[in-house]
Amino acid sequence: MSGLEIEKYLAEMKELVDDALDKYIPPVNEFPPGIHESMRYSIFAGGKRLRPILVIASAETVGGRREDVLPFAAAVEIIHTYTLIHDDLPALDNDDFRRGKPTNHKVFGEAIAILAGDALLTYAFQLMTDPNLMNTVSPAVILSAANEMAKAVGSLGTIGGQVVDIQSEGKEVDKETIEYIHTHKTGALILASVKCGAILSEGNEAEMEALISYGRDIGLAFQIVDDILDLEGDEDKLGKAIGSDIENKKVTYPALFGIEESRQMASRLVERGISSLKMFGSRADVLRDIADFFVSRSF
Amino acid sequence: MSGLEIEKYLAEMKELVDDALDKYIPPVNEFPPGIHESMRYSIFAGGKRLRPILVIASAETVGGRREDVLPFAAAVEIIHTYTLIHDDLPALDNDDFRRGKPTNHKVFGEAIAILAGDALLTYAFQLMTDPNLMNTVSPAVILSAANEMAKAVGSLGTIGGQVVDIQSEGKEVDKETIEYIHTHKTGALILASVKCGAILSEGNEAEMEALISYGRDIGLAFQIVDDILDLEGDEDKLGKAIGSDIENKKVTYPALFGIEESRQMASRLVERGISSLKMFGSRADVLRDIADFFVSRSF
Repeated sequence: MSGLEIEKYLAEMKELVDDALDKYIPPVNEFPPGIHESMRYSIFAGGKRLRPILVIASAETVGGRREDVLPFAAAVEIIHTYTLIHDDLPALDNDDFRRGKPTNHKVFGEAIAILAGDALLTYAFQLMTDPNLMNTVSPAVILSAANEMAKAVGSLGTIGGQVVDIQSEGKEVDKETIEYIHTHKTGALILASVKCGAILSEGNEAEMEALISYGRDIGLAFQIVDDILDLEGDEDKLGKAIGSDIENKKVTYPALFGIEESRQMASRLVERGISSLKMFGSRADVLRDIADFFVSRSF
Repeated sequence: MSGLEIEKYLAEMKELVDDALDKYIPPVNEFPPGIHESMRYSIFAGGKRLRPILVIASAETVGGRREDVLPFAAAVEIIHTYTLIHDDLPALDNDDFRRGKPTNHKVFGEAIAILAGDALLTYAFQLMTDPNLMNTVSPAVILSAANEMAKAVGSLGTIGGQVVDIQSEGKEVDKETIEYIHTHKTGALILASVKCGAILSEGNEAEMEALISYGRDIGLAFQIVDDILDLEGDEDKLGKAIGSDIENKKVTYPALFGIEESRQMASRLVERGISSLKMFGSRADVLRDIADFFVSRSF
């Protein structure tokens, strides 16, 4: 795809996902007061919707249809948002800004922020298990995708990465530890997005294997680039102060390997990720372009 | 059933549920350090396992088998435990003791307590969507039960009740508000336990209707009795200091109606709940006895 075409695709899919999120999440004025406002505040704080777009692109790569996986794609963004709200809490990263706006607990207080995160996580599973929303997909397949997602974001996945991240603050860690943090805290949800799109569209075993290699590589690359942007990104584009990793004493790839080597590692991962997609031919062009965007992005 | 028989049944089911929880939840030493220890600490802090027992008893009442619903029953207890961990946090109820032991954040710190709660909630949905654990139940039925559970514990259910509870602290509220808090914060999960047992065992429409009436009534009765025990219970039996509702400025039934009237309300609810079970004859004896225990309990 040309640069213009992929930009158009990403914008179109973002709109589709935004509309779905708006349709699915209870309105601001739904009782009880505050909680849905808080949930929507963070959902609509300006994400790129990369994870749900990966669900859709992965589904389309194996011959599925975007409308069949849309509720699940929305659920992935909802899970991502809950992790951000809880990560920002004073007891965890204690961040005041996110995507250029005050963090959830800064606006709604800690109690509502904790409960909004809980409610979003719960709501994601409500969407993923709704037998009416995805009625073109068989219940056994939906169940298997929801189960895959639960595994990816639990204590052996996303949350496990967050635990080690917190426990490693201010410590010198080895390559193994930082790789664990990045592949779990960030990589697990990206990989699961790719996997679940293909599961829901009943990709075959060889297709699944190729997509798993791809998802694993771009997931790690994404977080390495995130680390680099936190050091030398554009604050206006990122919507947050740079240098927060240093302030929070986070372990990062640039701290361990330097910026140049980290950049090369990310490029090599993306290259390898793209090379896993050969069997799909032009059907995987979108996934290739998304991978390229992962390393070239400036926000 | 005689008093001795129901005690034996409850003890037997508690052991069954405890064994399942021990089998399903990752071991203490599973990487990363701390998180599974924290999850297990609160899971095995001495609950009565009433909600999972309701799942089992409800399933058996409509002709189901306990082994078929056991993973789901365990998941319900896991959800209950996550709500306790998050409710106890300093930003919410700020409680130091629960079931006679220091609360999760007092032992593991706030960050791990928040993440342990998140991990338990996620793990509950992992269990509820595991296609291998409940392979005697059809995927469509499992999906429908998991969806029911998600609705019950989201922002329009359990979490909604918790939001209004927090927002009502120290205020004078009307009967409508306190009924909303109790039916949502506590009642929703009890009702969902009863419902899901019957959904998983494919109870018919009339059976579902009867069980819903029963579940709604005993759920509210349970919380009214909880309010009374917080005023005049035995601290040793309860495992926590009494008077915490007054200290936390919680709205309670005794505060609004007095102890005697509250006790009568709980009794009337349980009576009505039991009367909904007529169609089941002796098959619903366990559910009747559990309802009686709900009002007569001293812990």
